[in-house]
Amino acid sequence: MIYADNAATTKLDIDALDAMLPWLQEKYGNASQPYSFARGPKKALGEARATIAMCIGANPEEIFFTSGGTESDNWAIKGMLQYADQRVIITSQIEHHAILHACEATERLGYPVIYLPVNSKGIVTPDTLTKSITRNTKLVSVMLVNNEIGSIQPITELANIAHDHSALFHTDAVQAIGHIPVNVKALGVDMLSASAHKFNGPKGIGFLYIRKGTPIQPFVDGGSQEFGMRAGTENVASIVGMATALKKNCDHLAETGQKLRTLEQTFIETLQKANVDFIRNGSDDRVPGNVSISIRDASGEMLLHRLDLKGISISTGSACDSVSTKISHVIQAIGVPKEYAEGTIRVSFGRDNQIEDAVQIASCIIDILQRR
Amino acid sequence: MIYADNAATTKLDIDALDAMLPWLQEKYGNASQPYSFARGPKKALGEARATIAMCIGANPEEIFFTSGGTESDNWAIKGMLQYADQRVIITSQIEHHAILHACEATERLGYPVIYLPVNSKGIVTPDTLTKSITRNTKLVSVMLVNNEIGSIQPITELANIAHDHSALFHTDAVQAIGHIPVNVKALGVDMLSASAHKFNGPKGIGFLYIRKGTPIQPFVDGGSQEFGMRAGTENVASIVGMATALKKNCDHLAETGQKLRTLEQTFIETLQKANVDFIRNGSDDRVPGNVSISIRDASGEMLLHRLDLKGISISTGSACDSVSTKISHVIQAIGVPKEYAEGTIRVSFGRDNQIEDAVQIASCIIDILQRR
Repeated sequence: MIYADNAATTKLDIDALDAMLPWLQEKYGNASQPYSFARGPKKALGEARATIAMCIGANPEEIFFTSGGTESDNWAIKGMLQYADQRVIITSQIEHHAILHACEATERLGYPVIYLPVNSKGIVTPDTLTKSITRNTKLVSVMLVNNEIGSIQPITELANIAHDHSALFHTDAVQAIGHIPVNVKALGVDMLSASAHKFNGPKGIGFLYIRKGTPIQPFVDGGSQEFGMRAGTENVASIVGMATALKKNCDHLAETGQKLRTLEQTFIETLQKANVDFIRNGSDDRVPGNVSISIRDASGEMLLHRLDLKGISISTGSACDSVSTKISHVIQAIGVPKEYAEGTIRVSFGRDNQIEDAVQIASCIIDILQRR
Repeated sequence: MIYADNAATTKLDIDALDAMLPWLQEKYGNASQPYSFARGPKKALGEARATIAMCIGANPEEIFFTSGGTESDNWAIKGMLQYADQRVIITSQIEHHAILHACEATERLGYPVIYLPVNSKGIVTPDTLTKSITRNTKLVSVMLVNNEIGSIQPITELANIAHDHSALFHTDAVQAIGHIPVNVKALGVDMLSASAHKFNGPKGIGFLYIRKGTPIQPFVDGGSQEFGMRAGTENVASIVGMATALKKNCDHLAETGQKLRTLEQTFIETLQKANVDFIRNGSDDRVPGNVSISIRDASGEMLLHRLDLKGISISTGSACDSVSTKISHVIQAIGVPKEYAEGTIRVSFGRDNQIEDAVQIASCIIDILQRR
């Protein structure tokens, strides 16, 4: 089997799993209880928080554990809601559904949202934001890396524009964390979402970075966990696994990135040599490992299924929406020509892939296209 | 060590852990993707859903996986919010903070909530609900078992009253599921919250039962997972662990219950024989294993810490709020006399406790009280 859908999920790191096991076995105490048996879990939470903070240039008390990227995104958006506050949330048309659908829910509750267009490379240009933002803007949310086409957004510039208008800035960094260098201070963001299973951590855990002093309400209310900001018994095992995985990925960021670039290049060149007529989607500044291509007069769905029969796992558009097979909102937003759009596939290489995988996937695609 | 704080969290069942491991290792595919590698996870989700549904008398498509009881409770409350809908939510004063604080957040957004008082046994009487409910009530939420004093509420009667007024009914069953027989049809509830780690499943996973046709909005918006009602990549390992643990607990409900009743009785009788002056809190109809007592002129906090020094883990009031050491909202609501209230402790036995544990905890308490 060749797994090349690492933007959908990644394999849990073996060291992360090992770090999780004690908390799934003998050390099961509730971290929020005031007795000795809770001290181990509590200490582990603190260490995980510090590790994660270090990886993104934050302070530990700015890291809030959540159940994943989707919850983090929902929190960033819905944590802004205030009675009779009609200030506007601005986001982009190519955000993940966790942002888009959270924004639509916000609209249904009577709060206004603006969805910015992107250019053909999938970039929210600073100009576009400048034209829409006003003193009545409450929050701007733009993703750091797009999950379909891998484009890296000019977050620092966008955040500056937001702050110049006294608005907050959030970035969905689910596809970025553990894959490109991320420093919240350099980015200048007030909030940042992450999901562990996208960087070889476990599923069902993530975090939201919230810069100290950022005015946001809790999303999940209840007990006083997470400094009173996110209730629910702490998922110690998964939190420890997340921190272990993130540190390991960050420790090898440059070398993994370089390896993935080689895989991308090999894949693209193999297709080019066979004269496949395709467009590579996204900007040149792209997360390592992501290859979104649109092949003329092809069907992405057919390619996915034929590759699957050959033991190769890749994706069409978004990873989170197997029910929907129509052309994704991202491919639409960047304006891929009609004769190419339906032939869109996303190959996302991960650290476990080898150069042979890139060659084999490309060869299989060529083979499938030639047999049509 | 003696662990007797099973209402705070329980030890993960060994079979549940074994069932989780493949999904944390080789079978890591994203369950929502449309290729073969996702088929195993998808099938496992379906089986877990069916198992859980069977345990509570629901249909599989009425089970929605969440990150735990707190999220389930938040969803049940906040999923009711609709623009310009001023119908009322009714709950009780002794609910878990996951309900109470979610209701307070709802109020801050401009939606009205009523908090019903309870009687001295911690019961929301049908009369009390009847006096407050009107045709303008949207939802009634009353917990099945109280987490501090173990009282079982007359849910069937309360749900009937709600339905007679065209209101929906939700119950927080976090302390009930896996401990007493629970059948959603017999209870007549529209929604029910559960948390895996309270019934020997893993932390960070739970579910919300939503009766088919119940008008509720998603709480966590995004991808189309969970029939489009709860977004986020499915936490397959934890979901499988939850189902395994629940089935096992439900298979041994009667015998475990009987064993726990014996432990309770031994504990209480040992204290009585030593003439400890205490009140046992809660109703006679109580979840097995729960012993909440208020000891005259004692300090629950002091008892907790002295017991901890002897290697015994118990709780004072609520399990979720180690920061707060004041008299809990539940103990206040049932009107425990002042000279007893501060001396409240909760011992919650679990299936791994033995009769010797009950004797030893009681003996240690007697010893501590005599040495004052």
